[in-house]
Amino acid sequence: MVAPNALVVGTVTLIYDHHTRLLPEKLTDLQHEHHHVIISTLHAHLDHNSCLEVVVLRGKSKDVQTLADLLISTKGVQHGRLVMSSPQTAAHHH
Amino acid sequence: MVAPNALVVGTVTLIYDHHTRLLPEKLTDLQHEHHHVIISTLHAHLDHNSCLEVVVLRGKSKDVQTLADLLISTKGVQHGRLVMSSPQTAAHHH
Amino acid sequence: MVAPNALVVGTVTLIYDHHTRLLPEKLTDLQHEHHHVIISTLHAHLDHNSCLEVVVLRGKSKDVQTLADLLISTKGVQHGRLVMSSPQTAAHHH
Amino acid sequence: MVAPNALVVGTVTLIYDHHTRLLPEKLTDLQHEHHHVIISTLHAHLDHNSCLEVVVLRGKSKDVQTLADLLISTKGVQHGRLVMSSPQTAAHHH
Repeated sequence: MVAPNALVVGTVTLIYDHHTRLLPEKLTDLQHEHHHVIISTLHAHLDHNSCLEVVVLRGKSKDVQTLADLLISTKGVQHGRLVMSSPQTAAHHH
Repeated sequence: MVAPNALVVGTVTLIYDHHTRLLPEKLTDLQHEHHHVIISTLHAHLDHNSCLEVVVLRGKSKDVQTLADLLISTKGVQHGRLVMSSPQTAAHHH
Repeated sequence: MVAPNALVVGTVTLIYDHHTRLLPEKLTDLQHEHHHVIISTLHAHLDHNSCLEVVVLRGKSKDVQTLADLLISTKGVQHGRLVMSSPQTAAHHH
Repeated sequence: MVAPNALVVGTVTLIYDHHTRLLPEKLTDLQHEHHHVIISTLHAHLDHNSCLEVVVLRGKSKDVQTLADLLISTKGVQHGRLVMSSPQTAAHHH
């Protein structure tokens, strides 16, 4: 429904155990490779093991979706969800 | 499906125009009234007018849901969405 | 010491009482007027009254300093401090 | 000047190259070991290599200072600075 080149904003919420082997490194590497669509990332250390991370994204719909898919499908991520604004809304603001 | 007293974590993503009369004040007031279920809030100024705000939540399912509903239904919010982890996941981590 | 046009990154930490009349509005307005030097802002509701806000900045030294001065000197801000990276460091990374 | 058990709030700003061997892991591990004094952490990917991280802290002065020292002195951190509110301010709010 959203054109691949439409400008969107969104968030990806991730919950994971930071002790999972190489998981934090993989998530960080993915974010740096795609840093042009990331505004910033908020990390909450929920307890000794688990983290909630929210990545705030802005860019072309296809690039935001690609990064979200990569992050959410990384082995060890327990819960992941993309929230993306409609292009109408984003267009209205730019 | 989620028991009202189950412990959950989640995020609420909000997109709005910060020039909407009294809107930023209302959102801030709501967050302070419910600060016991808020870890922190990330705010991105998208341009001169529009904001993306992500509120990171932790608490009882019913309290998280109540605050999310209040924020998302505040007049002037253009896009709002709650992402909440299942109690199984949260229980597994606490 | 830092050339006014040198590219820098930094943070401004602010502590204030969100009930102070018009203070949250003033801080939000200042940030939107200067949104081109702001990456994002993290807000922690410390209790029913007080907030800690961290504004992450990137831009020309003079612009970052100007916004920091405006935020820190806003009436009602109880504690404010700018941390800014040296231009050498910033240059090294860009 | 600040009593070791006084309650304080503060931020630690860190700038580093995320490619430095094991650095992101060390910073994440330190934060999880001390998660009881961390509210949350904001991470901005400045470019392909460098990061700015702001850790928001609340707790006893001595615990906040200890974690700040550990983070700032981690090998590879290029710039690190603690901003901590006076206990008077913190006490005034709690």
